[in-house]
Amino acid sequence: MLKIGVVGAGLMGEDHIRRLATSISNAQVVAVSDVNVEQAKRVADGVGPVRVYSEAHDLIGDDQVQAVVIASPGFTHEEYTLACLAAGKPVLCEKPLAPETDACLRIVEAEAALPRRLVQVGFMRRYDDGYRAMKDTLDSGQIGRPLLLHCAHRNASAPAGFTSDMMITDSVVHEIDLTRWLLGQEIVAANILIPRRSSQAPEGLQDPQLVLLETEDGVLVDVESFVNCQYGYDIRCELVGETGTVSLAEQAAVDVRAQARRYGAIPADFRGRFARAYHNELQEWVNGVLRGEISGPSAWDGYATSAVAERCLEALASGRRAVVELAERPPQHA
Amino acid sequence: MLKIGVVGAGLMGEDHIRRLATSISNAQVVAVSDVNVEQAKRVADGVGPVRVYSEAHDLIGDDQVQAVVIASPGFTHEEYTLACLAAGKPVLCEKPLAPETDACLRIVEAEAALPRRLVQVGFMRRYDDGYRAMKDTLDSGQIGRPLLLHCAHRNASAPAGFTSDMMITDSVVHEIDLTRWLLGQEIVAANILIPRRSSQAPEGLQDPQLVLLETEDGVLVDVESFVNCQYGYDIRCELVGETGTVSLAEQAAVDVRAQARRYGAIPADFRGRFARAYHNELQEWVNGVLRGEISGPSAWDGYATSAVAERCLEALASGRRAVVELAERPPQHA
Amino acid sequence: MLKIGVVGAGLMGEDHIRRLATSISNAQVVAVSDVNVEQAKRVADGVGPVRVYSEAHDLIGDDQVQAVVIASPGFTHEEYTLACLAAGKPVLCEKPLAPETDACLRIVEAEAALPRRLVQVGFMRRYDDGYRAMKDTLDSGQIGRPLLLHCAHRNASAPAGFTSDMMITDSVVHEIDLTRWLLGQEIVAANILIPRRSSQAPEGLQDPQLVLLETEDGVLVDVESFVNCQYGYDIRCELVGETGTVSLAEQAAVDVRAQARRYGAIPADFRGRFARAYHNELQEWVNGVLRGEISGPSAWDGYATSAVAERCLEALASGRRAVVELAERPPQHA
Amino acid sequence: MLKIGVVGAGLMGEDHIRRLATSISNAQVVAVSDVNVEQAKRVADGVGPVRVYSEAHDLIGDDQVQAVVIASPGFTHEEYTLACLAAGKPVLCEKPLAPETDACLRIVEAEAALPRRLVQVGFMRRYDDGYRAMKDTLDSGQIGRPLLLHCAHRNASAPAGFTSDMMITDSVVHEIDLTRWLLGQEIVAANILIPRRSSQAPEGLQDPQLVLLETEDGVLVDVESFVNCQYGYDIRCELVGETGTVSLAEQAAVDVRAQARRYGAIPADFRGRFARAYHNELQEWVNGVLRGEISGPSAWDGYATSAVAERCLEALASGRRAVVELAERPPQHA
Repeated sequence: MLKIGVVGAGLMGEDHIRRLATSISNAQVVAVSDVNVEQAKRVADGVGPVRVYSEAHDLIGDDQVQAVVIASPGFTHEEYTLACLAAGKPVLCEKPLAPETDACLRIVEAEAALPRRLVQVGFMRRYDDGYRAMKDTLDSGQIGRPLLLHCAHRNASAPAGFTSDMMITDSVVHEIDLTRWLLGQEIVAANILIPRRSSQAPEGLQDPQLVLLETEDGVLVDVESFVNCQYGYDIRCELVGETGTVSLAEQAAVDVRAQARRYGAIPADFRGRFARAYHNELQEWVNGVLRGEISGPSAWDGYATSAVAERCLEALASGRRAVVELAERPPQHA
Repeated sequence: MLKIGVVGAGLMGEDHIRRLATSISNAQVVAVSDVNVEQAKRVADGVGPVRVYSEAHDLIGDDQVQAVVIASPGFTHEEYTLACLAAGKPVLCEKPLAPETDACLRIVEAEAALPRRLVQVGFMRRYDDGYRAMKDTLDSGQIGRPLLLHCAHRNASAPAGFTSDMMITDSVVHEIDLTRWLLGQEIVAANILIPRRSSQAPEGLQDPQLVLLETEDGVLVDVESFVNCQYGYDIRCELVGETGTVSLAEQAAVDVRAQARRYGAIPADFRGRFARAYHNELQEWVNGVLRGEISGPSAWDGYATSAVAERCLEALASGRRAVVELAERPPQHA
Repeated sequence: MLKIGVVGAGLMGEDHIRRLATSISNAQVVAVSDVNVEQAKRVADGVGPVRVYSEAHDLIGDDQVQAVVIASPGFTHEEYTLACLAAGKPVLCEKPLAPETDACLRIVEAEAALPRRLVQVGFMRRYDDGYRAMKDTLDSGQIGRPLLLHCAHRNASAPAGFTSDMMITDSVVHEIDLTRWLLGQEIVAANILIPRRSSQAPEGLQDPQLVLLETEDGVLVDVESFVNCQYGYDIRCELVGETGTVSLAEQAAVDVRAQARRYGAIPADFRGRFARAYHNELQEWVNGVLRGEISGPSAWDGYATSAVAERCLEALASGRRAVVELAERPPQHA
Repeated sequence: MLKIGVVGAGLMGEDHIRRLATSISNAQVVAVSDVNVEQAKRVADGVGPVRVYSEAHDLIGDDQVQAVVIASPGFTHEEYTLACLAAGKPVLCEKPLAPETDACLRIVEAEAALPRRLVQVGFMRRYDDGYRAMKDTLDSGQIGRPLLLHCAHRNASAPAGFTSDMMITDSVVHEIDLTRWLLGQEIVAANILIPRRSSQAPEGLQDPQLVLLETEDGVLVDVESFVNCQYGYDIRCELVGETGTVSLAEQAAVDVRAQARRYGAIPADFRGRFARAYHNELQEWVNGVLRGEISGPSAWDGYATSAVAERCLEALASGRRAVVELAERPPQHA
C-alpha cells in the first residue's frame, strides 16, 4: 500500500484524490494540502481519515507521506518538486513540470544529482490504449520508418480567459510530448501558421492554429489546435511511415442508426476521452513506486516539452520558424 | 478495505486473485483455497500474506474473510454459495450459479429467507462499456421499443473436450443473461437450428449453432454460437427497435493501412475483449459490498439463465422449440 | 446500338426508360407501350422519336424492336415474356418473372425449347458493388466454405396496402435470389418466425418478420424483413465461412462530425442505395445482348426464387417449416 | 448523339475512347488522332468505324467531329485547344490545360472573345461522389464556415522518371483545383515543407512533401503529397468548419474478418478509386454539350490551378512561401 499526499485540491487535484481513493489499487491518500484549507477539507472529507494542510511543505515533510502528487497551480511546481527531491520522495507532478523552461532544467539537474529517479510528469496520454497501440504498431515494423505525423486537438469550447498562448502551453504540449515519445526523437524546430479565425472564438483568441514541428530525423509534424470547435472533444492522430500508416481509431462504444443517420457519440471533454488513461497513469505509477521503479514521463521529458512549447510561443509572436536548442542531457536520461 | 477470500485457484481463480491484488481499489485478498493446496500456495505467493486452505468451508468460516469470490468448478458452486449465505457473507459466484437449475433455485430460496441480498453472479458482460451504452441508448428512447436482437458469439477455437452442450452452457449463457438484462424481460421459449457443421470443428461437435429465444413481450433473439471460427474472438450484437437500432461498435484501438488493406485487430480471446468488464465487475462489487449494497446480477438471474439454458439443451436434443417455465419469483427479486 | 422496346410506363418502366435514354451506352428506346397510352406518350416525350403502343404485343412484334424490357404489372409477365420468346427477342423481365411458380416454370420450359437463352430476370442486386465483392471474397477462399448468412432488409416505411405476404414476395425475394447466387446452391426449406409487431406498422401488417432458409449444403440463412423501420433504407448482409466472414460495408460517401456526433447518411429508399446496381444491370444486359450473350439472372433463377417465396408464404400461414421441391432443371440451366 | 473526336491515343486517350464507346450514353467516337498513327489505328479498331488521323488539326477540322477530347501530351494542349476554339467546337482538355501559366491565360483570353464557353478542363475529382457530398455538406451549413482543409494524396509508387516537380504538377494540382472548387475562393499563397525523404523513393525524388496553401479568406490547406507510400492509392480529405468537419469516408465495398483482423481493400491506383468520377465527368460533359451548356471546370480553373502550381514549384526551389498573383478574371468567369 502506497501512502500518498496530494498537493492542491482544485479541479485536477480533486480528480486525482477521488481516483486514488476509489479506483486505484494499493494506494491510499493520507494527506491533502491546499492554500484554501477549507477546500482541502471538503475534498478530504469524502476520502476517509486524511491529514489536511494549508502548506504543501508540511505535507511533503509528513513522515506518513511516502509519495506525492502535485496538482497545484503551475507556478508552484518547481518549488514543491524540488522539496520532494530534497525529501527523497517520489513525485508525480501534473503538467507542466514548470511553466519556465529554466525551472524545468533546475529540476532535471537536482534529480540528476540523486542516485535514482524520483520525478514523473503527468503526460497521461502515453497511457491511452490508442497511443500505446500506435507505438506498438510502429515498433512492430508494420508501417516502416516514420516520416510524417498529422494531429488534431479539438475542444468543444475553451474556458473563459483562455489565451492564444495557452493553446500551446495547455493543449499542444500533449502533442509535443507524444511526438517525442512515439518517435523517440527530440524536436528541433517549431513554427505556427495562422488560418482564418473562427467567429465562434472569443475576441482576441487566435483559434484555430496550425503548429508545425520538426524532429532530429526530419519527421514533420502538423498539429491543428482548435479549442472552440463546438462539436465535441476530438483527438486525431495519424503516423505516416515509409510503408504504411497508423491512426487512432474511432472511440464510440456503440453505433446507432436512427433518423436517416448512422452515428456514434463524440465525448464532451477530455475527462470522457482520457478517463482510462488517467487511471492507467496513476495505477502504473503506484505499482512502479512500490517496486522502486519510475518509468513514466521524466523530468527531462517535462523540460524538453517546455523548451519546445517556448519556441512555439516565439514563433506565434514572430510569425517565423524558431529553432529549439536543448541543454545537454544528463547521462541518466540518455 | 474489503478482505476477500477466493475459493478456487485455477485459471479463473488465479485471474481474479491477480486482479484483486493489483488493480482493484479497496480490496485485499486475505485467503485462498483449492483442493490442490500446492496450486493455492503458488498463486497466493504472488499476492502477499494470505492464508491458504485446502477446504473451502474453512476459508468461508475464517473470521478475517469479509466477502467471498467463488471460482471453483461449477458443481461445487451450490454448496459453497449456500455456506456463504449461512455465514452471512457477500459472495460473488462465477457463472454458472450452479449447473442444475434446481440447485440455482435452492440458492434463490435460501437467500430469499435472509434479510438482504448477498449473492452476485459473475455475468461480467453487463459491465462492458459497449453493452452499457446499448442499454443507455435503448433507455434513452433513441431506437424505440425493442423488437429483435441479433447476436454472434465467436471463439477462434474451442478447448479440447468442448461439447455441443457447452456451446450453450459456457457461451450462449452470456447472451441469455444479456437479453434478460438489456430488455428487462424473461425469456419464454428457446429453439436451436443446426447449420452445416464446420470442418474446422473437432469430430462430434455441432459447431456452429443458431439459437433462437423469445421473450415475454415477443422480442425475438437470434444468437450465432460458433466456437471454432478461426479468425479471432468476436462478439456482435444489434438491438432493433421500432425507430432505430443500436450495435456494439468495432473495438480496435488503431487503424493500420498497409499492404493494400486498411485493418484493425480482432482480439484472440475473451480476456483481451472483456478485460475491462472483469475489472469493472470486481471494482463495483467491492465498492457495493463496502457500501452495503449488491446490485449486480442476482441469484434470480443465475437461476433464470440456467433455466433457459436447460431448455436450449432440450431443444438441441429434440430438434424442437422448448417452452421455459420459471418458478415464482421471490418478492425481493421482483 | 441496341433498339429497345419497353413494356409498361409506370414508376419502374419510366425509371428504366429514362436510364436507357440518358445513361446507358449503345442503347436506344424505340418503342414504349402501356395500357394507359397517355402515360406512355408522356414518358416517351422526354426521350426522342419513340413509337407508342397501347398493346404490348404490338410492341413486341414491331420489327424495329430488337430487345424488350418488361416493367408492366407482375400478372402480365408470363404472357409478354412468352411472346418475346415466340418472337425470338431477348427480354429483360422485371421481378417477379411471374407471380405464380407454375407460370415461371412454363417460361423456363418454353425457353428450354429454343436454341439459346433469351430471358433475364431483374434481380439487380447481383450488380451491386458490395454483393459482387462479397462473392469475389468468398470465391477467393479468404473466408472458407460458407456456413451461415445473416441478412436484414429494412425500408423506412411501406407503401399503403403493403401486406405481410408482400414482405416476402416484394422484399425477401431479393435475399432468396442472392442466397442462391452467392452460394451457388438451391434452397431446400423455409420458415418464418414472428416477433413482436412494430406499433409503427399499419394495422394488420406483421412487421417485422424473421425468415429462415436452408440450402442444399446446409447453409442456414436468416433474413430480417422490416418494412417500417422508420430510420431509412438499410440492407445488411454478412456471410460466415469456416475461417472468416465478409459483410457489406457502410455506404456513406462522407463522415460528418457535428453536434457531439460522428455520422454518415443512410439512404431514404432503394433508389439511392441501388442506383448504380440498376445502371450496371442495364448496361451489362445491353452489352451482352449486342454480343449475343445473356448471362444475368435466368428464367430458372426466376422460377426457383418464386418457388421458395411460395413456401415462405406457406410457412407464414401455417407457422411451420415448409420444404421446397423444385422441378427438374433443364440441361441448359445446369 | 454527340460525335466526338479524341486527340491522343496513349494511356489516357485510350481510356477515354474505351469509356466513350462502351459506357457513355449519347456519345459516339467518330475520329481518333495520334502522331503514332499505328497506335491510333489499334485503339480505334476496338470501337467501330472511326476515322484515324496522324494530325490533330485534321481531326479538329473534320466536319463529322462535333466535340473534341484532348488527351495528347501537355505541351500540345494550348495549340489544339486554341484550334478547337477557332473551329467553334466544345473541347474537354485533360489536365493540365497547359503546362505554362501564360499559355493557359492565352486560352482564357481566346475563349473570352467568343460568345460562349467551349472549354472544359479534366479535373475529374469534382465528379467523385465523396467530394460532391463534402461540398453539399458544406453548402448545407452543417459544419459552418470553413477554416482548414487537411488533404493527403498517396500513390503506391510513382512511375520511373517521376520528379519532385511532378509531385505538384501531376498530383497536387487536383487538390489545388478542389480547394478552389470546394471553397469557392482563389488561393493567394503557397509553401512547401520538406520532411525526411522516404528510403522507398528513387534517388533524387523528394518524397513526401507537405504543401501549404492559403486562400483569399484565410483558409489554410495542408496537402501531404506522397507518391511512393507502398500500401496503395489513398486519397484523404477533411474540411474543418467553425461548427463541425466533413471527411471523405472509407471506400471499401466489403469488410472481411479473417486471420485476427477486420479489413477492407485499398485500391491499387487512381483508376480503381476514380473510375466512377471519370464516368460521371464524361457523361455530364456529353449531356451538357448536347444541351448547349458547359458547366465543368473552366479554362479559368485551368489557368488558376496552373498559376498556383507554378508558385508551389517556386516555393519548392526556394524553400520560401510564394505569393500567387492572378491575372484579372474575364467577366464571364466571375
